[in-house]
Amino acid sequence: MLGFLSNGLPIYPMPDSVRVFAPATVANLVCGFDVLGLAVERPGDEVRMTRRAAPGVRVTRITGDDGRLPLAAERNTVSASVQMLLRHLGRDADFGVDIELHKQMPIGSGLGSSAASTVAGLWAINELLGRPLTPLELLPFAMQGEELACGTGHADNVAPALLGGVVLIRSYAPLEVVRLPAPPLHCAIVYPHVEVATRDARQLIRRTVPLHDAVTQWGNVAGLVSGLFLNDIGLIGRSMQDVLVEPVRAMLIPDFYRLRELAMHAGAVGFGISGSGPSVFAFAPDEATAAAITEQLQRHLAGLGVGSEGYVSAVNQQGPRVID
Amino acid sequence: MLGFLSNGLPIYPMPDSVRVFAPATVANLVCGFDVLGLAVERPGDEVRMTRRAAPGVRVTRITGDDGRLPLAAERNTVSASVQMLLRHLGRDADFGVDIELHKQMPIGSGLGSSAASTVAGLWAINELLGRPLTPLELLPFAMQGEELACGTGHADNVAPALLGGVVLIRSYAPLEVVRLPAPPLHCAIVYPHVEVATRDARQLIRRTVPLHDAVTQWGNVAGLVSGLFLNDIGLIGRSMQDVLVEPVRAMLIPDFYRLRELAMHAGAVGFGISGSGPSVFAFAPDEATAAAITEQLQRHLAGLGVGSEGYVSAVNQQGPRVID
Repeated sequence: MLGFLSNGLPIYPMPDSVRVFAPATVANLVCGFDVLGLAVERPGDEVRMTRRAAPGVRVTRITGDDGRLPLAAERNTVSASVQMLLRHLGRDADFGVDIELHKQMPIGSGLGSSAASTVAGLWAINELLGRPLTPLELLPFAMQGEELACGTGHADNVAPALLGGVVLIRSYAPLEVVRLPAPPLHCAIVYPHVEVATRDARQLIRRTVPLHDAVTQWGNVAGLVSGLFLNDIGLIGRSMQDVLVEPVRAMLIPDFYRLRELAMHAGAVGFGISGSGPSVFAFAPDEATAAAITEQLQRHLAGLGVGSEGYVSAVNQQGPRVID
Repeated sequence: MLGFLSNGLPIYPMPDSVRVFAPATVANLVCGFDVLGLAVERPGDEVRMTRRAAPGVRVTRITGDDGRLPLAAERNTVSASVQMLLRHLGRDADFGVDIELHKQMPIGSGLGSSAASTVAGLWAINELLGRPLTPLELLPFAMQGEELACGTGHADNVAPALLGGVVLIRSYAPLEVVRLPAPPLHCAIVYPHVEVATRDARQLIRRTVPLHDAVTQWGNVAGLVSGLFLNDIGLIGRSMQDVLVEPVRAMLIPDFYRLRELAMHAGAVGFGISGSGPSVFAFAPDEATAAAITEQLQRHLAGLGVGSEGYVSAVNQQGPRVID
């Protein structure tokens, strides 16, 4: 920080170039379909953004996407959301940037791949502009990026990616997010190499549900939130049950219930689908247990002939970070 | 306390007679249908229980019920649940009590009338026996009493009546209750003199609900629980919205939506139906505001030709209490 403006706002340095990491996220956190999300330390995506003389937003390079993401600025969610932000601030006519996106996580994995990219881009442009917006004020732009990427502007990936920790989206209209205490747990994450498009995964879900199951679900949502505030690991674990959405989405994941058994037997606090899948995740009391769970799940998938990627990560506490 | 037994349990005096007050409760706390309940300081019921030489449980007197409650020990929820507890402890053959029940709150009001009586009785017998059971251990007996009174063994009246404050019933099978922080708020409660039987009120509710509404509901449940832990009155108020059950039950309450408007205009934090109605309640930031809300709601009902009872109360923090 360089000091304060006359209105009390701090003055931050405005670099010409910045590199930002934004975390992967576990949305639809078990019982908290559409309302609870969690940020993890890894994997995540990186954006390098460099100011240039001419106005306009360009994507100059994308790595790690196997050529699947568009370079065209209006179709790429990173550049499109950066453009929206510049327009909102009235800077689109005088401010130009080049963007490099370095995907360090799989696309279509249920780990908030597009959210991580979008959030990294928004965090980077906000840095280059001297932080005119708070992380919470970046959220609507990130949601518009999600809408472009997934067809729906859900917040349960972008909100935890921006804010870190566990985030509750209490309401969409009006938008209200609440940062919940992040548990002192480690995450075992496994992405089986089967593809599930978010749009398709959503269409599987029933439009109406039995009230009895909905009551069970919000009892568990309330239990999970209470467990986070009370730092009660047992209560968190017992509340990690989804009676409504998981039974449908589990069909898309190879041997889902056996994976759960293996994880719980290896010491998991709880287990569930990440986002709309196919990634699965488990909470574990420590890093060694998380590593053992990841390894067992990957080995079981390999036995089924399904390749996978595995991650072991703490809960991300801070959201994105500037790397240099 | 008189000292400790060799197994470390404290020894309490065992009086021959005890008088216990147990609080009224607001079950189905707005969005928390079937899972959240709240105890208030008043109204409530009183039980006087006196040991006698011969075994057996007798109801010797009931006041304040207009002759509506049965004296027959096996049909009265107070004596029936006391008998169950004595049987559970193997004391039914050697321990006898006479019970006086003094109803100090209306029956069929949606304020947990049967729960208050049952809990007062169980608290009293536990005192007379030297407190062999914890409040939580009394809960299953209270739920059996509720089943006798209401046809369903729901816990969201008896659990807060026993434990005080705001209580979450995370799960019924297995039973798990969580005591949440009680908000520093006052309650305005108004019971309009129209009768709604719990059985009937439950039958009005749809068996299936739109998933979209269920998501809205559990977002609010999570917001309400977060607001209680964060002591964030604004968040508590914004989360006090029930999109699923209230729209149906509101039909049973005279001019419900006008009552809400009046309460909110008079400074309520939030407003809802108590239990299955017809009582309504509001959270207010202080006692004076709660009193003003109660008075306005009663005046409006009087204008409609509907008599009512009004209460102003703090949140009960301790559950039942021994009066003498």
